[in-house]
Amino acid sequence: MITTDICIIGAGPVGLFAVFEAGLLKMRCHVIDALPQIGGQLSEIYPHKPIYDIPGYPAIQAQELIDKQMEQIAPFQPTFTLGERVEALEKQEDGSYVVKSNEGTSIYAQVIVIAAGLGSFEPRKPEVEGLTAFEGKGIYYMVKNPEQFRDRKVVIAGGGDSALDWTIFLSEIAEKVTLVHRSENFRGTPDSTEKVFELAKHGKINLLLAHQLSSVRGTGHLTDIIVTNKRQEDVSLKADALIPLFGLSPKLGPIATWGLAIHQSAINVNTVDYATNIERIYAIGDINTYPGKLKLILCGYHEAALMAQSAFKYVYPEQKLSFKYTTVNGVHAF
Amino acid sequence: MITTDICIIGAGPVGLFAVFEAGLLKMRCHVIDALPQIGGQLSEIYPHKPIYDIPGYPAIQAQELIDKQMEQIAPFQPTFTLGERVEALEKQEDGSYVVKSNEGTSIYAQVIVIAAGLGSFEPRKPEVEGLTAFEGKGIYYMVKNPEQFRDRKVVIAGGGDSALDWTIFLSEIAEKVTLVHRSENFRGTPDSTEKVFELAKHGKINLLLAHQLSSVRGTGHLTDIIVTNKRQEDVSLKADALIPLFGLSPKLGPIATWGLAIHQSAINVNTVDYATNIERIYAIGDINTYPGKLKLILCGYHEAALMAQSAFKYVYPEQKLSFKYTTVNGVHAF
Repeated sequence: MITTDICIIGAGPVGLFAVFEAGLLKMRCHVIDALPQIGGQLSEIYPHKPIYDIPGYPAIQAQELIDKQMEQIAPFQPTFTLGERVEALEKQEDGSYVVKSNEGTSIYAQVIVIAAGLGSFEPRKPEVEGLTAFEGKGIYYMVKNPEQFRDRKVVIAGGGDSALDWTIFLSEIAEKVTLVHRSENFRGTPDSTEKVFELAKHGKINLLLAHQLSSVRGTGHLTDIIVTNKRQEDVSLKADALIPLFGLSPKLGPIATWGLAIHQSAINVNTVDYATNIERIYAIGDINTYPGKLKLILCGYHEAALMAQSAFKYVYPEQKLSFKYTTVNGVHAF
Repeated sequence: MITTDICIIGAGPVGLFAVFEAGLLKMRCHVIDALPQIGGQLSEIYPHKPIYDIPGYPAIQAQELIDKQMEQIAPFQPTFTLGERVEALEKQEDGSYVVKSNEGTSIYAQVIVIAAGLGSFEPRKPEVEGLTAFEGKGIYYMVKNPEQFRDRKVVIAGGGDSALDWTIFLSEIAEKVTLVHRSENFRGTPDSTEKVFELAKHGKINLLLAHQLSSVRGTGHLTDIIVTNKRQEDVSLKADALIPLFGLSPKLGPIATWGLAIHQSAINVNTVDYATNIERIYAIGDINTYPGKLKLILCGYHEAALMAQSAFKYVYPEQKLSFKYTTVNGVHAF
């Protein structure tokens, strides 16, 4: 069991800034995120895009903002559980909580802060006959360990950067890689697109443009994938693995079942301390809603600051909170 | 008459960020501040101090933050009136306002945003007999134009950086500079302190430590300053000018008379759009108050963003506001 003062659900910019504001008040944080890396949407979806509305940064790349925030919270030594989704919340007799992940991790905390952005990102699944029967038995929506595909016949489906980049990467490892895309054009970066066409030209991969996934077959484990071409003809491909990469779709997930007041997939909070309707549970950043709400990173920062002032009473019930400026008092590392 | 969409009172970090948020929505801003330079408290009081709680900056010097923000708002070409204090607000028939400064400047705007921090900074005046009679006639609380002291006999009073720095500067220009300080030690930086002792040692200035200002005399214009030493003996100094530099003290000033709901020197606002009780007048940053309020720069940034969304309806009454991300849409300069 991991023990901390505040369990923050979501390792995006707002969750990370909550670590900072909590740290100034000497509260320790553990952060859990369903994605395999820190940074939320910024690192997963648009790491190289510039953001122009972070105050004091005329422009900053999304990943650079995350890196700077990691540097800013380093003195407070946050701990992380990554690639695991929060499933259950168990209230303890003394009011504290135990958070449980889908992989069995338990986190004991006095306060829960939901900073989960648009929710946990789950892979978009294509409409393919027989798909769910082979999940984990030949069908994978993420590449967690590329080595599992060594010397296997792999079919990748999709037309964005993930599909292109894994095609390029696995072409060196797998016995055979087939890339299936329903259009004639890719949505990925020109560099990756060019590289994929180059590999196809030299017979290093099998490229099926204007083809759609139709069905999957096997006995126990996946063995065949049927794709359909423009003339509605079926083509059968022998395959050990299918990796559909059609992007990620945000889902509120199990959080929706915790009894929180929710309005249009967002958690209702007040604007005094961004507390939810359940004591000791706060919601900050894009996942919350209140009159006037703007889904801006800079608003989440403000919400994190007010949340921390309020959460203090649960972590240090016998202490009086005194407000101090960092310019006057500095930052005291743990 | 200066014509703009939004008149922002206060050129500190929050007022400057309001220019940015307004600019994203194509609203032009004019900023007025009582201090002679942009940056509010940050530039006036602690330009070289590091701030640790600006999100994404593990540490940033106050002046550097202001410089970055000026760069960030450059595309929106804000205009400034500096060194003038807002005196009156005149409501127009169509709901808009004309703001008037103490020096007669008029600014016509659809919306007023008060981002005045702790209020306008006014010089702390020492208790000296006859002081007010010579204000502007030999007694100056700020040095606006050093040339006015060329070849004059100047007495500077105070023990902080302003007193030390102007002593050093005016020692090159004035006929004679006397620095009067009530203690034996200075509060300024070691560098400036050392320089002042050096100048005194070489007879370039006259240094009177452990002396206090007692009274001032003259006929029409200041001619003599009486200071008292530790043994309570009076010393008379011939002087054309006295510059008391005892720091600045914040005052809400004429804003307090506009009919705004005020609680403990702060302006009441709601947290939906940070509007005051008077239509078209908003208050953001340290000058406002609401349940949960924290006087942090980062909170003022959030308030500026929500204010701008709300102010839009007064500037573009016939347009519908659509919310856009800078990451997607970029920043479009005026």
